[in-house]
Amino acid sequence: MADLKRTNYREGKNRRNKKQVVRPKQPRKEPFKVIPLGGLKEIGKNCTVIECCDQILIIDCGLAFPEYEMFGIDIVIPDFTYLRNNMEKVKGLIVTHGHEDHIGGIPYLLREMNVPIYAAPLTLGLIEHKLEENAMIADLHTIEPGSKFNVGCFKVEAIRTNHSIADSLAFSIKFPGGHVIHTGDFKVDYSPLDGKVIDLNRLSQMGDEGVDLLLCDSTNVMRSGYTPSEAVVRKSIDEIFDNTDRRIIIATFASNIHRIKYFIEASMKHKRRIAITGRSMENVMNLARELGYLDELPQSIFIDISEIKNYSDSQLTIITTGSQGEPMSALSRMVEGTHKTVKLKKRDVVVFSSSPIPGNEKIVSTIIDKLYEKGVDIVSASSMDVHVSGHASSEELKLIHTLLRPKYFMPAHGEYRHLAEHAKLANSLGQCMDNIFIMANGDALCIGDGKAEIAKEYTSGEDIMVDGYGVGDVGSIVLKDRKILSQSGIFVVSVAIDKASASIMAVPEIRTRGFVYVEESRALLDEAVAVIYNALGRHLSEGTTDEAVLVKAIRHDLKSFIYKETRRNPVILPMIIYV
Amino acid sequence: MADLKRTNYREGKNRRNKKQVVRPKQPRKEPFKVIPLGGLKEIGKNCTVIECCDQILIIDCGLAFPEYEMFGIDIVIPDFTYLRNNMEKVKGLIVTHGHEDHIGGIPYLLREMNVPIYAAPLTLGLIEHKLEENAMIADLHTIEPGSKFNVGCFKVEAIRTNHSIADSLAFSIKFPGGHVIHTGDFKVDYSPLDGKVIDLNRLSQMGDEGVDLLLCDSTNVMRSGYTPSEAVVRKSIDEIFDNTDRRIIIATFASNIHRIKYFIEASMKHKRRIAITGRSMENVMNLARELGYLDELPQSIFIDISEIKNYSDSQLTIITTGSQGEPMSALSRMVEGTHKTVKLKKRDVVVFSSSPIPGNEKIVSTIIDKLYEKGVDIVSASSMDVHVSGHASSEELKLIHTLLRPKYFMPAHGEYRHLAEHAKLANSLGQCMDNIFIMANGDALCIGDGKAEIAKEYTSGEDIMVDGYGVGDVGSIVLKDRKILSQSGIFVVSVAIDKASASIMAVPEIRTRGFVYVEESRALLDEAVAVIYNALGRHLSEGTTDEAVLVKAIRHDLKSFIYKETRRNPVILPMIIYV
Repeated sequence: MADLKRTNYREGKNRRNKKQVVRPKQPRKEPFKVIPLGGLKEIGKNCTVIECCDQILIIDCGLAFPEYEMFGIDIVIPDFTYLRNNMEKVKGLIVTHGHEDHIGGIPYLLREMNVPIYAAPLTLGLIEHKLEENAMIADLHTIEPGSKFNVGCFKVEAIRTNHSIADSLAFSIKFPGGHVIHTGDFKVDYSPLDGKVIDLNRLSQMGDEGVDLLLCDSTNVMRSGYTPSEAVVRKSIDEIFDNTDRRIIIATFASNIHRIKYFIEASMKHKRRIAITGRSMENVMNLARELGYLDELPQSIFIDISEIKNYSDSQLTIITTGSQGEPMSALSRMVEGTHKTVKLKKRDVVVFSSSPIPGNEKIVSTIIDKLYEKGVDIVSASSMDVHVSGHASSEELKLIHTLLRPKYFMPAHGEYRHLAEHAKLANSLGQCMDNIFIMANGDALCIGDGKAEIAKEYTSGEDIMVDGYGVGDVGSIVLKDRKILSQSGIFVVSVAIDKASASIMAVPEIRTRGFVYVEESRALLDEAVAVIYNALGRHLSEGTTDEAVLVKAIRHDLKSFIYKETRRNPVILPMIIYV
Repeated sequence: MADLKRTNYREGKNRRNKKQVVRPKQPRKEPFKVIPLGGLKEIGKNCTVIECCDQILIIDCGLAFPEYEMFGIDIVIPDFTYLRNNMEKVKGLIVTHGHEDHIGGIPYLLREMNVPIYAAPLTLGLIEHKLEENAMIADLHTIEPGSKFNVGCFKVEAIRTNHSIADSLAFSIKFPGGHVIHTGDFKVDYSPLDGKVIDLNRLSQMGDEGVDLLLCDSTNVMRSGYTPSEAVVRKSIDEIFDNTDRRIIIATFASNIHRIKYFIEASMKHKRRIAITGRSMENVMNLARELGYLDELPQSIFIDISEIKNYSDSQLTIITTGSQGEPMSALSRMVEGTHKTVKLKKRDVVVFSSSPIPGNEKIVSTIIDKLYEKGVDIVSASSMDVHVSGHASSEELKLIHTLLRPKYFMPAHGEYRHLAEHAKLANSLGQCMDNIFIMANGDALCIGDGKAEIAKEYTSGEDIMVDGYGVGDVGSIVLKDRKILSQSGIFVVSVAIDKASASIMAVPEIRTRGFVYVEESRALLDEAVAVIYNALGRHLSEGTTDEAVLVKAIRHDLKSFIYKETRRNPVILPMIIYV
């Protein structure tokens, strides 16, 4: 199939070239810029900016979760400086789908500017929920697959795709600069659970019309072949339900409504009632109900989690959060025995309809170990097909490239290696490397006058760390301190000095945290006091009481003393009080 | 094949039962204990103790690497308390192979007691190197596959296995209590690079003789089928060497000598010289040379890393450490541009002959991203078979169980889920669940009088954390402090109080680390001073100068003030100096 498509692709290119010869001369296109923003090491993931004719369209506004060594950071959002400085140009935000990495930054953006938001019903519902939590209101517009609408000079068309959340969209964006297609996160699923296949015909028409620039999901470019359909999950779930009369507990991503709906349908078929537990799962289910996604299901099938005691194991399905091992999730509370109503029993069947997000592998395997210790039967993607990815593998990507045949290509939504492999993939289909642009967040791809080039570091591609109420107030110095503190703790010395007499007014106080357990280190601390007296004495005896000098002397002497004794390097913090 | 073997297994069981009927009555067996020690969540990995007739044999003495949130910990070793308390019983240590998780604890054990050590040449060489670094000497005995030797009442026989390091052994241990087989880490490789296949015949004879207890590697029990042979790697390496004239840089585990030797042979075939870089790689290569593992290779093929400038790319292979993304490794230094002699070039071919150890996934993908940015060609296990596991998959495990047909079985070397699955595997082959024992570290399996049972928490299964010179002085309180410090930093307040007048002698000093960047938080700190005055004033005005009271008041008021303002919870450390 790949080869066949590749041939089509080349024919298409020729055809387009021929057409251009006979067409009337096109009006000169305006120059435009495309800037990926946010997503930490992933490029073009959280947010993308398109600018043309002094108008800006934003695509997605998500957050990233902190990486290893971003100690104490809650979330990470794109740097909105460029948008802030060009606020009058910003015409709107269009959102591809409702995952946090595409909507989680919206409250932070709206704090700075009022932007009309366009999204499909589920996506918009999730955004509204987020805005309510922040007591915010915004100008929200519901769109559907096939919707065409204008945002300033941008003529946007929403195109249905498949992904691991309902209501996922790609966008066709036509404007005086040209025609850009942004795929969002997608896969090609010929048998999705809701029967709504990605609109390949519309994409094909777009390709025939001509695409100047494609931004395309790169997550799974390193997987060969095709990502399996959600239908595969359905088959495995049927097998599980057909073969057990035990209680079934399913942990999955709350946002995968179609999959959850299938769990419910399978439960109905086997005369099981469904109880939902976990805050985000309850929220999304309520939203799904409001939006009519569960309309065919009788409400009587749902029971409150507190009612499970009234049903036998064979009559129960529990759908829960916690598939990523999140410490406070419902599943974690079951495992720790702190869940209010669900006590795990030997031979409960626990299904992980998920795979660990990179970085979560350890925490997920810890919870699986604990489940094994409880004697429950565990079904996970390693033993049965109870989860499939929501991102296109290489053959699906080839299909999209072949249908769209873009002039320029910007691999998006991936770390550098994914973008580089996606560039190779496009190149293998005949696209010239000179027309493929591997960006960094904050770079601008500038297209105009029939050529395209990257303006490096056009704006800040730095992500902004959010810690509690603080947005951006934790920087690299604070993080570095947190790292050192985490490695060896802190050693605080407080000294009272009389400036007039250049004398020490009381025995120096020492406190440590995260260094050694003090009760076991009395001798070490006593020696440290001697080291401090000695350091101070050198200078005080000469009449020097300058704070910087004394602090430096204490720090220097203590540092080498402590390292010699313990091979550790705690933060040493001398504080001088002049009395 | 599994089914066929299963049939044999059952026949075997019957045959053994029959033989027992006609044999002369066996002398009564002595009771014995088997205690797994160390390995954090992995059971029976770092160290195993067998005790019989007041004599103790130790099998392996390794270390574990710290887990997530073991802030600042260098390594983790087994708790030797039980051995310390029974020092006079300890007769010797036998070592299955030379990986750190099996030898890294030896210097710590030898600090406490002098134990004769028995190991194969490479293993012993690696142990000696470790002892030299610690300026220690020990009573070392070289053994070979097939060696039979006595350690106290334990008659030990070394049996050749295959693993990802040369000279790996299983042990047959016969003693007045019975016959125990410990597989060590192993796989069944019918075509290993050195041609020395695991001694299945000897294992088969052992099974015929009768095995009371089997301890068996569980690492890959959740992988179906067979672990591929090292010969697969050879094929991929040939393909790489046949198809490039670029410089080849291979990152792999230093201890996999046979594989490294094959890289060298492939280089010779293609008229490439070999340069080695990275301290552990150089050490192991020197050791391999001393032990004669490289005897067939002409020394002229090796060049010093400083000589690479004298050769063209097509004449060079560089073998390096850093396959796990270790920050100070030679490969990391190449990537950061700080390696003294190797500057990466576009289209260098970098081969990762390794897979990330669980927990290292993120750091390895970071280095791969950086390599992509350098434009090098990367070959890893995801694109070609340049690495295979060293542990047996489920079909190989079935083979071992079927050959040995042990009376009792203790799954070893795995986290709980692996042990539980290994138990199921043994059960599926006909072994009764009552004779399978899933242990925790520190539990004792007590066998005697024809029965076996677990003594829970027989000794301490806690691992001991090593931080610098400190062995075990960092406990849960210190770690908890380090965690809190890493999340929100520390807020230190120093106050000088005159006891007589119950008055504050100077403006309180505040210092923070890892909290917020001070320059941007002047207002917050000024308000904090007011909060401190207020907290102190309440008590001082009543004449109270008691340290505990004042510290508590400051901490309480500051905590709620800071949380209200910042939604953060730093460590608050008030220090009172009485002058």
